[in-house]
Amino acid sequence: DEAPPDPSAAQDPFAGDPPRHPGLRISSRKPFNAETPAELLTERFLTPNELFFTRNHLPVPAVDPGSYRLRVEGPEGRVLSLSLSELRSRFPKHEVTATLQCAGNRRSEMSRVRPVKGLAWDIGAIGTARWGGARLRDVLLHAGFGEERDGEWHVCFEGLDADPGGAPYGASIPYGRAVSAGADVLLAYEMNGEELPRDHGFPVRVVVPGVVGARSVKWLGRVAVSAAESPSHWQQNDYKGFSPCVDWDSVDYSSAPAIQELPVQSAITHPRPGAAVPPGELTVKGYAWSGGGRDVVRVDVSLDGGRTWSVASLAGERAAPGRAWAWRLWELRAPVPAGAQLEIVCKAVDRSYNVQPDTVGPIWNLRGVLSNAWHRVPVTVTR
Amino acid sequence: DEAPPDPSAAQDPFAGDPPRHPGLRISSRKPFNAETPAELLTERFLTPNELFFTRNHLPVPAVDPGSYRLRVEGPEGRVLSLSLSELRSRFPKHEVTATLQCAGNRRSEMSRVRPVKGLAWDIGAIGTARWGGARLRDVLLHAGFGEERDGEWHVCFEGLDADPGGAPYGASIPYGRAVSAGADVLLAYEMNGEELPRDHGFPVRVVVPGVVGARSVKWLGRVAVSAAESPSHWQQNDYKGFSPCVDWDSVDYSSAPAIQELPVQSAITHPRPGAAVPPGELTVKGYAWSGGGRDVVRVDVSLDGGRTWSVASLAGERAAPGRAWAWRLWELRAPVPAGAQLEIVCKAVDRSYNVQPDTVGPIWNLRGVLSNAWHRVPVTVTR
Ligand SMILES: [Mo]
Ligand SMILES: [Mo]
Repeated sequence: DEAPPDPSAAQDPFAGDPPRHPGLRISSRKPFNAETPAELLTERFLTPNELFFTRNHLPVPAVDPGSYRLRVEGPEGRVLSLSLSELRSRFPKHEVTATLQCAGNRRSEMSRVRPVKGLAWDIGAIGTARWGGARLRDVLLHAGFGEERDGEWHVCFEGLDADPGGAPYGASIPYGRAVSAGADVLLAYEMNGEELPRDHGFPVRVVVPGVVGARSVKWLGRVAVSAAESPSHWQQNDYKGFSPCVDWDSVDYSSAPAIQELPVQSAITHPRPGAAVPPGELTVKGYAWSGGGRDVVRVDVSLDGGRTWSVASLAGERAAPGRAWAWRLWELRAPVPAGAQLEIVCKAVDRSYNVQPDTVGPIWNLRGVLSNAWHRVPVTVTR
Repeated sequence: DEAPPDPSAAQDPFAGDPPRHPGLRISSRKPFNAETPAELLTERFLTPNELFFTRNHLPVPAVDPGSYRLRVEGPEGRVLSLSLSELRSRFPKHEVTATLQCAGNRRSEMSRVRPVKGLAWDIGAIGTARWGGARLRDVLLHAGFGEERDGEWHVCFEGLDADPGGAPYGASIPYGRAVSAGADVLLAYEMNGEELPRDHGFPVRVVVPGVVGARSVKWLGRVAVSAAESPSHWQQNDYKGFSPCVDWDSVDYSSAPAIQELPVQSAITHPRPGAAVPPGELTVKGYAWSGGGRDVVRVDVSLDGGRTWSVASLAGERAAPGRAWAWRLWELRAPVPAGAQLEIVCKAVDRSYNVQPDTVGPIWNLRGVLSNAWHRVPVTVTR
């Protein structure tokens, strides 16, 4: 979520970026950031690769799959170097259907309260794919690490994308999550049955289900186990939540924890804000998801700004307890009278009975992350 | 949270209940239910035993510690019968500082929106103790169970308290939590360094950190591993959350999951609603806690009903990641001008960046559980 580097550099570092689908809604070209249009978001349970939101911090690296090596730093200075074919053949392929969400999804609603620093995401910086790859657990155990480690230890990831000074994108997750069989963390080389697209980390990315997208490092080059979190800018000085009273003069990044699990979230994908809909039966559609594998147990929908509510129908099936990594799509059908002004609202409840806050102002924060207030969509019913 | 049985029964089944501390704020005498007065709640980090909230569903059983036996139903029909001294001597004593909260804590705020069925708890149906006992994990492994079991399996608990028909209080938790070393589930025989008081489960109770109090079964008589949740009324037909649109005519208890982990919570213990405070520096005090071992990372306090916020100081220390079982006490000092009308508000943020909802109406439910909206305390500053 950095300001784009200056594209007037002698040679455009983004010249090697891949082609993109014209249907994406672009929020920044260099680096490339784009979201799935809301209307397409809930057309299918699995988001098509070419329409999956793209969150790049830096130019897309050009990686030759033949010479690619993943460096895994083992205990006592031992280093494992894995080619792509070794990663594929030495470890069982594990498949997980998981939703990834950008910390800044729905930031534009927060910006309307007061300006924030970051890309103006609407509700589409979220998507769901079937990821295939090696379990990070299996790779760590193979490298010689054990099941247990003190709670503060992290597994650090570095991407092959780097800023002009050569500093790579980096992030980390707690060791306990990395090594847990139940947490399903992958070193993924497949997305929806295809090899990873370049914009999504070809040839290998981390996928950390239930956790903010920023930790699912793309173009993975290096895995290291450390007594502390990643020293990366994106772990230490970004992707953290603050009180609405904190501004750029008073912010102390060390005072807040790095975002890992995300809070409960939902949004309305149909109809769109400001739409005119015909009288009769209206179908409201959307998505709902929560972090940490907590399944969505209910979505409430209001047509009158939150005064009265109905319970939406959840599509799909309940996941295994604690491993609800994928969103639930939902819909509600309701009669709407000609000429009415509706304020459609949705709010989800997760397995821990956490709920979304009513309004965005009190969760406003200077970076515009964690925007999960009730989604409100004003709509006019035609006559 | 049942209506009290008729005390005009030929013999009062509550006649054997223990004496109680006169400082408790009583919400029902038979069965006995009482909370810690708000003013005393944050005097100390550990709630004194005699002032700890008491939530009894039935008469307190009179248990002879010498003849007490805990029945643990092992695999393949084997049954373990443990005396109190065997429970103490055969398993290492494990100590955990954990907050227990009733599902109905803060129900009275919900009742003011629309009537609900249940005891009129204020903010004191919560407390923190240092619990000592055997790990449930150790007892399960000793009984012959293993580390792993399909996600739907539960460990069922039955109390020695029973209704007039002989049905005991019962509840269950997922097997994974019960057997997890990191979840710290206890079969506790000590509370704050003393033997368990009768009102708190003497001689043995379950303590399930991070989970609704209703699963921490008191006067524990029986532990059984089952492919399904406890069939108990309190698991199946109570202690569940519903949409505000569900009423007693439409409620389908099978449609909602039993409450296990509780959502993020906080409340103001000082000053009290309606208080008059002197001008100058006001100290606002309260507690904050979240379920599932998620630590509280921030408490925001407003003196103007939520328009502007300050960050409160958290007392005590950060817990180990994912094992933040105890509340954080907090305070905020702020200047208040003579004659002002304040609406003091608090809201907490937990490690998953879940937050409390702004208002109670949209989380209203017919049983009045899960009442975790911003706590609002109107106060007058004297001249
Ligand atoms: Mo992000
Ligand atoms: Mo309770």
